Order: sequence, then structure tokens, then C-alpha cells
Amino acid sequence: MNKLNAAWAANNSLLCVGLDPDMARLPAQFQQDPNGIYQFCTAIIDATADLACAFKPQIAYFAALGAERQLEDICAYAREKYPHIPLILDSKRGDIGATAKQYAREAYDRYGADAVTVSPYMGSDSVEPYMEWTDRGVIVLCRTSNPGGSDLQFLQVDGKPLYQHVARLVAEKWNANGQCALVVGATYPEELAQVRAIVGDMPLLVPGVGAQGGDIEATVKSGRSKAGTGMMINSSRAILYATPQAGEDFAAAARRVALETRDAINQHR
Amino acid sequence: MNKLNAAWAANNSLLCVGLDPDMARLPAQFQQDPNGIYQFCTAIIDATADLACAFKPQIAYFAALGAERQLEDICAYAREKYPHIPLILDSKRGDIGATAKQYAREAYDRYGADAVTVSPYMGSDSVEPYMEWTDRGVIVLCRTSNPGGSDLQFLQVDGKPLYQHVARLVAEKWNANGQCALVVGATYPEELAQVRAIVGDMPLLVPGVGAQGGDIEATVKSGRSKAGTGMMINSSRAILYATPQAGEDFAAAARRVALETRDAINQHR
Repeated sequence: MNKLNAAWAANNSLLCVGLDPDMARLPAQFQQDPNGIYQFCTAIIDATADLACAFKPQIAYFAALGAERQLEDICAYAREKYPHIPLILDSKRGDIGATAKQYAREAYDRYGADAVTVSPYMGSDSVEPYMEWTDRGVIVLCRTSNPGGSDLQFLQVDGKPLYQHVARLVAEKWNANGQCALVVGATYPEELAQVRAIVGDMPLLVPGVGAQGGDIEATVKSGRSKAGTGMMINSSRAILYATPQAGEDFAAAARRVALETRDAINQHR
Repeated sequence: MNKLNAAWAANNSLLCVGLDPDMARLPAQFQQDPNGIYQFCTAIIDATADLACAFKPQIAYFAALGAERQLEDICAYAREKYPHIPLILDSKRGDIGATAKQYAREAYDRYGADAVTVSPYMGSDSVEPYMEWTDRGVIVLCRTSNPGGSDLQFLQVDGKPLYQHVARLVAEKWNANGQCALVVGATYPEELAQVRAIVGDMPLLVPGVGAQGGDIEATVKSGRSKAGTGMMINSSRAILYATPQAGEDFAAAARRVALETRDAINQHR
């Protein structure tokens, strides 16, 4: 949390840069390179490190390609070169305690992540093992940005949607040591505001701007904390696969979109 | 589903053998061996292949150790040598559609799994991408075996606990192509019976016997289908780390416990 607070301030940014390396969309020079994912992701990191409050690799893209080793190297690169920028492993794990501990080892020890996303469906003992790493964070899924998110998250429990129960559970119980944050999608600004009202200043990881179409102004106004921070607003594909303008390469294009996004966010803080 | 039906019949077994290789608990000869996890797991597979209706590697144990390559090799070994035994990748993934597709690639293409466990929290579009592999299965978390499972799964929605809504959602909507199964823990036999009543003959993956303490008789009587099958009753640690008796090695001990467990299950079918 200290690291995140410092990154918000140092880069004047609430922008989280998501790293979702889709081989088919990488610039041609990286598609033939066995280390191409590493080359691509570290170039994006270098191009955006002064504009981001966090980096968030999505492990599914690496797992599909058997590229865990490149993910290890990318995380090591980010930690070493930009130690002040929080690194979030987006893996949405959730399992019984003994297994969750293995996932915590994966996220924190193997990849050196500062925080990891987890699913709340299996309850408290699926989240507790992560808390043993007392200097790390746990970001619990609450209201996700996808359309099907409503299937469960909008079911009414005591007259309130399930996602609000999750927000309350995390804020009132699981966050005893101040290690928790929540995932709340930008595609539902009203619900973002509901969650903010429940959780006080707890940080929110907010996916769904950029390729998923969330509105930046509504997102910022609904989700900001009293201090005008409190959010990691994630954009992945819109930055990674920005179309270069004349004279730009992919990294310069990514930087341009990241800068525009950061500034658009800051307009409304 | 055909493969599972055939395995139930061929081995007269509802026992699923879970592969959770915990380095600290492996026999000493494997702890120093860089390929020790592969050696251990394939020995367990060989020792139990005529007693099991499925094998279920838990990916967390491999991910914590950076042993994905050994998991690939274990899956390839099982598929080649025992092609009639379903292989379940226990990974409990759940993410937005584009990302879920990457996880489906990981499970089905990379590891060659016949089925994969997924979390329902993110809803239909987090599960649909898996269905594109029409000859594979998707096993959705419903009522999990851990104590904290009640935190969400027992919340009342329209007078029924959430897990029953999940069971109904999967049975009535997500299972249109007959590719779905559910995870329901053995630690709650009454709830297992409730789920069986909702889902008809749908297969249930039932963890929680063995180390987690679920009662076999109650589990079988509550969860069996009309045909006396319908379940993959998982045991991992009790089999993997069986204490050898005089004259046994770890694999013989695993076989003995697997045989006892299979037969104890069959007593009550």
C-alpha cells in the first residue's frame, strides 16, 4: 500500500498498464523471436514506467504459450528497474487453504508480485494464506467488467446485490491487516460508486477502460477516494496494441496512448 | 463424458486420484531429482491406473515450483499410456472471455486435459470460451469442501443458498451441450444431495474424502446418480502420501489406499 501511494504521487497517475501479450497481435519482429514476449513487454514497461501507478501482467496469456519463464524475467526486470512501481499478478486464483498457499508462493515468491488478484467464491480460508506475506496485497474480485459478471454478482442477498456483500466482507473482515483491495469494473460506474461508499479509502483495481469501453470521466468521478486517488485504472490492449502514427513505433504509440489515458484520468480527479 | 462413462465401467471405480506434489512430502529420492515430480507422479499414475476413473493434477503445486514442464510431461504420459482415463486439470480459473480463451488453450491444448475446473463468479462469458473445445468438459465450482466456502456459497438468494443457484444456472443454461460438471465437496453430504436433486445425472467432482475428512458412505449415498455412478470422488494427499507398511514402497502404499478407497466407495453404490 505504501508503494502504491508513492507511485500515485511520483507519477501523478492512476493508470495501471496491463501486460496481455497476445502473440497474434505482437509486432512482427517479436513473433519469430523465442524471447519475443519478454522483448515486447519490457519495451512497453520502459515506454510507460513514468506514466503508470502499476504494471499488471495477465498470467493467462503467458500460460497459454508456456511462457512462464519469460514472465519470471519480465517481473524481475520490472522489479529491478522500476522498484517503486507496484507489480500486480492478475491470476484470479481461488482454492482451499493448502492450495492457496501454493498460489501465494507462485505470485509472491516466484514472480515477486506486490499483489495478486483472487476470486472470493471459496471464501475466507482461500484468501487467508496470501496474508502471511504481510508486505504484499490481495485484490479480491468484486464487480467484474464483463457482461456475464451479473450472473452471480447481481443476485440479490438481503435486498443487496452479491458484489456489495463481497465488498463489505472484504472491508469489514478480510482487510484486518490493510492488505486488501478490490476489482471493480469501469463498465458499471454506478456500482463503482456503491463499492466506494462501502469500502472507504480501500484501493480499487478498475479494468474496463480502453478496449472494453468504460467511460473515463464516469469511472474517475465514481471511484476516486477522498484524496483523489484510490484507483488503479487498468488499460491493457488499447495501450499494448496502439496503432502507430507517422514516425512512431509500437512503443512510442503505447506511450502516447498511456499519456493520453493518464491525462484524461487526471482531468477528472 | 463418454470417456468418463467408460472409465467408471472399465475400472468399476468412482475414485479420482489427485496429483498434488508437495516437495516437502515427496519420498527422499525425488526431492533431489530435478525431474522428481515427474517421476513421483507417473509412479502414482502407474500404481493406480486400474483403480481410478480420473486423474486430477492440481496446477498450484506445479506453479509454485515452476514445474509446468514436468506437468506437461506428466499429462502427456497419462494421455499416452492410459488414454481411457480422463485427465482433469484442477486450476479453478475464471476471467473475462478473451482471457478465459487463453486459459482454455492452457488446459486443453497445452496440457491436453479432458476437463478443467473453473470458478463461476465471473459468469457465463467466463465459461463459454471453454465450450469451443466441444469434446472437453468444464467443471464449475458449486459447493466447495473448505470451511470458508460458506462465506459466499451459503448466502441466501430468494430463500436458497447461492450454491444451489449455481447448480441450477449450470444445469439449465451453461450445460446446453452436455459439457458441464460441478464441484461439490464431500464434507457436506446434505448439500451434495441437494445438488444431485437439482442437476439430474450431471457428473460431480467431489473432493474432501481422505485428508479433508469427508465420510465415504454419506458421500456416495448423497451424491450417486440413478445409475450408481455420477461422481468422481477425489482423494489426493491420503493416497499420494500413504504411509508404507512393512515391505511396501510409496507406490505400493498409494495403490493399497487407492484400492481401499475405491472398494469403500463401491460398498455403498
